[in-house]
Amino acid sequence: MPSREATGAPRRIVVVGGVAAGMSFAARARRLDERASIVVLERGEHVSFANCGLPYFVGDEITERSALLVQTPESLRAALDLDVRTGHDVTAIDAERKIVVATAAGERAEFEYDELMLAPGAFALRPPIPGLDDPRVRTLRTVGDAAWMKDAAGSARRAVVLGAGFIGVEAAEALRHRGLEVDIVEFAPHVLPPLETEMASLVTAELRQHGVRVNAGVAASAVEGAGDHAIVRLSDGRGLPADLVVLSVGVRPDTAFAEAAGVATERGAIVVDEHGRTSVPHIWAAGDAVAKTDPVTGARRPVALAGPANREGRLIADAMLGERAPRPMAAPLGTAIVRVFGLTAALTGANRRALDDAGIDHETMHLHPGSHAGYFPGAETIHLVVHFAPATADEPGRIYGAQAVGADGVDKRIDVIATAMRAGLGVADLIDLDLSYAPPYGSAKDPVNMAGLLGQNVVEGVTRLWQPQDLPDVLANALVLDVRRRDEWETGFLPGALHIPHTELRDRLDEVREAAAGRPVRIHCASGVRSYLAHRQLAAAGFDSATLSGGMQTLLAYHGKDILTYEVDHRSAAA
Amino acid sequence: MPSREATGAPRRIVVVGGVAAGMSFAARARRLDERASIVVLERGEHVSFANCGLPYFVGDEITERSALLVQTPESLRAALDLDVRTGHDVTAIDAERKIVVATAAGERAEFEYDELMLAPGAFALRPPIPGLDDPRVRTLRTVGDAAWMKDAAGSARRAVVLGAGFIGVEAAEALRHRGLEVDIVEFAPHVLPPLETEMASLVTAELRQHGVRVNAGVAASAVEGAGDHAIVRLSDGRGLPADLVVLSVGVRPDTAFAEAAGVATERGAIVVDEHGRTSVPHIWAAGDAVAKTDPVTGARRPVALAGPANREGRLIADAMLGERAPRPMAAPLGTAIVRVFGLTAALTGANRRALDDAGIDHETMHLHPGSHAGYFPGAETIHLVVHFAPATADEPGRIYGAQAVGADGVDKRIDVIATAMRAGLGVADLIDLDLSYAPPYGSAKDPVNMAGLLGQNVVEGVTRLWQPQDLPDVLANALVLDVRRRDEWETGFLPGALHIPHTELRDRLDEVREAAAGRPVRIHCASGVRSYLAHRQLAAAGFDSATLSGGMQTLLAYHGKDILTYEVDHRSAAA
Repeated sequence: MPSREATGAPRRIVVVGGVAAGMSFAARARRLDERASIVVLERGEHVSFANCGLPYFVGDEITERSALLVQTPESLRAALDLDVRTGHDVTAIDAERKIVVATAAGERAEFEYDELMLAPGAFALRPPIPGLDDPRVRTLRTVGDAAWMKDAAGSARRAVVLGAGFIGVEAAEALRHRGLEVDIVEFAPHVLPPLETEMASLVTAELRQHGVRVNAGVAASAVEGAGDHAIVRLSDGRGLPADLVVLSVGVRPDTAFAEAAGVATERGAIVVDEHGRTSVPHIWAAGDAVAKTDPVTGARRPVALAGPANREGRLIADAMLGERAPRPMAAPLGTAIVRVFGLTAALTGANRRALDDAGIDHETMHLHPGSHAGYFPGAETIHLVVHFAPATADEPGRIYGAQAVGADGVDKRIDVIATAMRAGLGVADLIDLDLSYAPPYGSAKDPVNMAGLLGQNVVEGVTRLWQPQDLPDVLANALVLDVRRRDEWETGFLPGALHIPHTELRDRLDEVREAAAGRPVRIHCASGVRSYLAHRQLAAAGFDSATLSGGMQTLLAYHGKDILTYEVDHRSAAA
Repeated sequence: MPSREATGAPRRIVVVGGVAAGMSFAARARRLDERASIVVLERGEHVSFANCGLPYFVGDEITERSALLVQTPESLRAALDLDVRTGHDVTAIDAERKIVVATAAGERAEFEYDELMLAPGAFALRPPIPGLDDPRVRTLRTVGDAAWMKDAAGSARRAVVLGAGFIGVEAAEALRHRGLEVDIVEFAPHVLPPLETEMASLVTAELRQHGVRVNAGVAASAVEGAGDHAIVRLSDGRGLPADLVVLSVGVRPDTAFAEAAGVATERGAIVVDEHGRTSVPHIWAAGDAVAKTDPVTGARRPVALAGPANREGRLIADAMLGERAPRPMAAPLGTAIVRVFGLTAALTGANRRALDDAGIDHETMHLHPGSHAGYFPGAETIHLVVHFAPATADEPGRIYGAQAVGADGVDKRIDVIATAMRAGLGVADLIDLDLSYAPPYGSAKDPVNMAGLLGQNVVEGVTRLWQPQDLPDVLANALVLDVRRRDEWETGFLPGALHIPHTELRDRLDEVREAAAGRPVRIHCASGVRSYLAHRQLAAAGFDSATLSGGMQTLLAYHGKDILTYEVDHRSAAA
């Protein structure tokens, strides 16, 4: 039997899922094949809706529901001749007969395909907690969810958000904007678990400053009805009253129907090749339902981000219908960003835990540069952390990941670093980036250039860092040398520290030698700049010296203020 | 005679110029050599001052003069043990005896060196116009200039800015902020001459909207005294009264003293190797006084930017004093940015003229994406132009340059593209950049990703662009097909255009064929998105078709509104 193409009949393409990956695929497919029949089956009410906008709709920053609906079946028919069917829940695939089975309004419908594109996305995880079926508990995944929540927030007084991932934090802010009392409950030790401890603490402080109660390191054990409200019971025994509970503890690929048809998966995520082909001929897959390889650690995991989903959808259309050799899919770095009241937190690539889990030895540097020139009004501190390969690695200086938190300019710096990572640049290459500089926008040495300068110093041994997590060891076995000004020292210092302002160090090296008494010297200042200068002097004088990455700012963000003392001991008193 | 190093004596390093390159060098030199004697000779009153902040000081955005003084001789002595001498005008070098001769307060002083670092910068050009010695005429190069101008603006009513480069435009804005009537005079056809015509027109409109009078394509022929004010006479005969005239028509390397010592120059700029060595042993040079190679076109020219100057200063210290093989200097892309009232204009790499001058064949694309997701409030249009290598080039898709103008997010996109250029990425690689997306910051397809998608389509022939400068040829020899909505069409259209909304095109191809009558079809819409969809349909149907880069927005920005008609001719009437 000749193929349909050979007979000249139009190709029949069926797409399961009409949001990011599915719709990007369908649009590109039409642009590449004017004659194909393209049917898009979407379980929900809407296609191509702005799912990242849902929390802002709840929070009334986006006022019109229509703003969330980027496209409609009608607009897609008109512009792209797509046959979009909402309310179609795909239940099965018959890969032998090349038929997709869907249920729509209780009726069974079959769709024949020549090529089948799977973009079913993910569904919200529902942990095994009693009481989650309480009607006051809802996820925030669809326009319907958001409309319900926007409405419910109008009469609710107290909300509990279960899960402090990106959507949970956005939902908490939205509900706080609406005037509710809001509790966040997060099982991990801190909000936004992918962030490093020293970055997440800044976000926690911002949430608390805006009246959000943060309960981290604790689980919800039950949701109990209590008349006109619910009570979220925590593992520590407390009960949080709630008129509204947002469930956002994560997602899982929605792939049971595909697995049943023989499509290979790993831990629930569809396995595809570099062009999006699944294990079953003529079935392709992309988006949140698909397993991806972490380009830094090699770990395999789904990545629930719109950008990679769109990209994959388009590339599959190219592979399926294009005239050229298709481009392989780029492994997503997982760049993500979230606004938390007045702060922005963003990250790209691997974090400390992912590197440790993968057994990847790494250096870490912390910087606190201004978002623009300090002499121009309005500069905000950017707290930046970058992980990179040490001098001993195969590729010294390779950038493994970066995170930033601050009130301004965070998105730009993470995007620049993500671009550098995608291109395979190393930390020293960041020095050479020609970034735009005028006082309102940056500095002659942009924060990213600064990271390059510091990173190169580390890789080449011009500086040597110690890390906040080394503190117990440092306090036990080294001399802490604090090179801040006296007025800074007096705001609190590390127990046992020797205090010599960096401008006096050149003339007081003997005091350091005496106090160290053969121990290593571990220097710090407020942010790491002055202690670097001090380290160069000590290193030139033959000390075993290192400078604290990110200085006291990072140390306090990591450990909290309880590590400080105000009692001068004999050594610093002698200074 | 043994060298001083061999005898163990500290190295004697002399630095000429204490602002960007000179001070970056000196600071790095100290960090690498704790024992060296480092003398910095600066002609002016101040070292390490914020020269990019001067216009903002004039405009009262920076209120304190002290904010401009990033470092002082005293702070540099304390932190880095530098011997900084201001008011020292270097007049000669004796390279045989390794002596620098300076004049300070009328006295001659000599400084012996083992290594000499030249960072003399540039001086302001003074065109041969009579009357420039009028005391109301001043450049804006030093803290003293800025203080004078800030003061003069207090009593002045009218200012003329000669030269609409970056500093001229910043000065015009600053003086307008201070309430003066301001005229800009620019000899080139438009303000900010490095910008493309279609980008500069947006800046001109912004200046005019804020009351700055823009006189472009005209020269100043004289400055005449007229009692209590001056009159700037223009080549078109007009006279502009001025209480204050800012001269900012460009700079030239300040290198006569170095040339006299035998240091090789080209067109006045010092020639250095990739580590900053001049033609004379033990003499190095960096910053605005040095010739650099354009990494795109290969052209040689000085680049007066703080970022590259700082980078070069540090790299010379590494080459002079470091223990490792020094890194070569990266050729600067010339990334630059300027705030013009509510707009930002930025550029990186080569512009159309530089490419044409170098004989580099190129594609150009224009986009008008939003600074963030359109469904989230506050999105602003970014007008983006990217030049890149065509399919026929050695490296198809290589990015040659980019420019952007808009009210938000311009700096980020240019910085990302500059990073991609530095890394050698091509346009299609821009698709794969994992840029941060949440509604307040960007879109699932960021403007830079969008440029990648369009650029790849161009390189692979999926789309084909026509350019604003092709308009006369298109009007003469092609059918213009306008696929906008009817309400857009009615705001004005191109003479002779056929109007078919893009959603109706699929059913009306016969009308196009009839109207074209064998001529090529040149499509446009408002911004280029819908005309691309239309192009795909026409291409699939066998037409000689192309879509206007950037659509009507770019066409009007390039040509102005006079190209539009409101008269429907027989063809569109028939449609």
